[in-house]
Amino acid sequence: MSFSFNLPVNLLFGAGCINEIGKRVGTFGKKALIVTGWGSTKKTGLLDRVSGLLAAEGLESQVYDQVKPNPTVPQVYEGVKALKDFEADFVLGVGGGSIMDAAKCIAFMGKNDGGLMDYVYGRKVSSEAFPVVLVPTTCGTGSEGNGFAVVTDPETGDKKSLRGTMIVAKLSIIDPELMTTMPRGVLAEVGFDVLCHCMEAFLSAAAIPVSDMYALTGIELVRESLLSLYTGKGGPAEWEKLSWASTLGGMSIGIAGLTAPHALEHPASGLRNLTHGRGLAALTVPVIERSIAAAPARFAEISRRLGGWNEKDCVVQVQELLAGLDLDIGLGSQGVKAEDVDWMAENAFKVSAAGIANNPVKFSLEEIKSIYHSAL
Amino acid sequence: MSFSFNLPVNLLFGAGCINEIGKRVGTFGKKALIVTGWGSTKKTGLLDRVSGLLAAEGLESQVYDQVKPNPTVPQVYEGVKALKDFEADFVLGVGGGSIMDAAKCIAFMGKNDGGLMDYVYGRKVSSEAFPVVLVPTTCGTGSEGNGFAVVTDPETGDKKSLRGTMIVAKLSIIDPELMTTMPRGVLAEVGFDVLCHCMEAFLSAAAIPVSDMYALTGIELVRESLLSLYTGKGGPAEWEKLSWASTLGGMSIGIAGLTAPHALEHPASGLRNLTHGRGLAALTVPVIERSIAAAPARFAEISRRLGGWNEKDCVVQVQELLAGLDLDIGLGSQGVKAEDVDWMAENAFKVSAAGIANNPVKFSLEEIKSIYHSAL
Repeated sequence: MSFSFNLPVNLLFGAGCINEIGKRVGTFGKKALIVTGWGSTKKTGLLDRVSGLLAAEGLESQVYDQVKPNPTVPQVYEGVKALKDFEADFVLGVGGGSIMDAAKCIAFMGKNDGGLMDYVYGRKVSSEAFPVVLVPTTCGTGSEGNGFAVVTDPETGDKKSLRGTMIVAKLSIIDPELMTTMPRGVLAEVGFDVLCHCMEAFLSAAAIPVSDMYALTGIELVRESLLSLYTGKGGPAEWEKLSWASTLGGMSIGIAGLTAPHALEHPASGLRNLTHGRGLAALTVPVIERSIAAAPARFAEISRRLGGWNEKDCVVQVQELLAGLDLDIGLGSQGVKAEDVDWMAENAFKVSAAGIANNPVKFSLEEIKSIYHSAL
Repeated sequence: MSFSFNLPVNLLFGAGCINEIGKRVGTFGKKALIVTGWGSTKKTGLLDRVSGLLAAEGLESQVYDQVKPNPTVPQVYEGVKALKDFEADFVLGVGGGSIMDAAKCIAFMGKNDGGLMDYVYGRKVSSEAFPVVLVPTTCGTGSEGNGFAVVTDPETGDKKSLRGTMIVAKLSIIDPELMTTMPRGVLAEVGFDVLCHCMEAFLSAAAIPVSDMYALTGIELVRESLLSLYTGKGGPAEWEKLSWASTLGGMSIGIAGLTAPHALEHPASGLRNLTHGRGLAALTVPVIERSIAAAPARFAEISRRLGGWNEKDCVVQVQELLAGLDLDIGLGSQGVKAEDVDWMAENAFKVSAAGIANNPVKFSLEEIKSIYHSAL
């Protein structure tokens, strides 16, 4: 066993802890650029609440709200302009995964020259970024627990992560009460994404003992909370569990990376703008079916944490969960066409080479095409 | 459930990873003050090896080797003088817990004015310190995984921790092969200390889900490795397990703090200079016996991880391990006298108030005296 472990997260977790935001962020400066989306943080009043909590501590803030699902490079550059015009000291992302990832990219490009995709592809490197504070409002991406920020280049369709400890949030405020306003369909999708993060981190060739602990605990917590919340039975304790599972999933992939389901999903949602969770729902079972033989003990462990017995019923456990979440769907119903498969398979090797390499089975281009066809 | 979690460790772990030290520490500067002890790192050749690895990468180093077990404030000040005279850029601690803690204190006082104990007691606060790099050569203290540094003030006999993220090592290089030179008696003591760290963190009122994961995993790893190494049966895999358990123990107490066994041990080894592990061996069982009723589920979990069934056989599990390690001893045989008890009990409240407050049972002064008498 040998590994390196460096994930400098700083988490504040608990129902109602958003109320501490004003007192906690002063250490990062006096002026916050709040990055958020068009809709839900305004409708729920959260955006006004956060601005008010900052103002109460003498902090100024300005809102940049032009981030859309699957954020793009131009949206990031617009955000950087807002950051510089306002002369902000730090970036505060309030929202779901797209928002948090955009906030990280804006904080990064605020300190760096050149093109964002140069850094995404590693052609340029920098450890500089404005401090990032994150307030997740969905429990899915786990972006609050790692140094990943997924961004899409509309010129190429490439959807890929900027990565590094420089964009790990200097503080993440994870308040399970903020998750409760998610629409039910979104809950199913982001909750399944949490499970995928934990499963893929545990299966990754880059897994280490710390990521294993986080991932297995996360899988158990998803089992104890997701269906119960989706069917309306769960309460505050289940929101806590799923929120914590989400952060654990983010931390586990921050350490161990992802495997084939995410590697194959990014090209699909980069191309057709389907939601990430629905893409994963379509792709995960076909990938697992073709991967079990290469890591039976790991799949058996996952299966047991989900309520099964061994690697043989791991697929059934996942399928039952998907059915319970009304996510037993294919890519075809999400707008992906058979003629997209060749491009997606080639793009997967371009944008997700690490995810493909980390999978228990190292799939060939033809095998990946076959998985996409099965998932249609 | 609500908590905050901020433990910015950066770990490099694995057999032989010490060979990477030269390449890894350049980011902290060109001149390293190496803090080490009088004996073992010289005898084993490790000190020369480390200096050579640094020199091979163009780094200068100078050795400060005046740290003794249970390091004192004057030793820290001497180290600070060496740091300043050499104009070092960072501090590299190579050794056991005393060495690592001294290295942290030297790095801290190199940047701060006034008396070290002012910071230990919180009368003064600073977040400044020279970067610290740690190379543990014993698997016990776990200092490589947290922001604690225990120091003794010889004027008062107080043995207490400096604490803060500013003294979390910027890099810890944990090479299980370096542990294999420990004398067998030292192995027993530091290995039992690992178990205490994990048990106490898990029992602490300040425990959070992350520290629970670390602590329970650590307990299992101790069970799988310590006796086997002590009896000469274990090999490289067991050294890996115990080394990782040690770091996990350090991380878990870095998050959750300690409870009564450590709280009561510090006054004993502060006063009589017995070794920390032998003090813990004498005190842990009397403390557990009086604490189980307040946290039966937690003690049952510990017992199961040690091979027992429930809270009722937790004491037996610990006693059997102590006997196997030839550590079924009392404080009396370590030089502690009945007339020391009153001072130790009062000192425990002075130096270890948090540890006493975090214990499942909040012991009174009289109860603590009674525990010391039982442990004689």
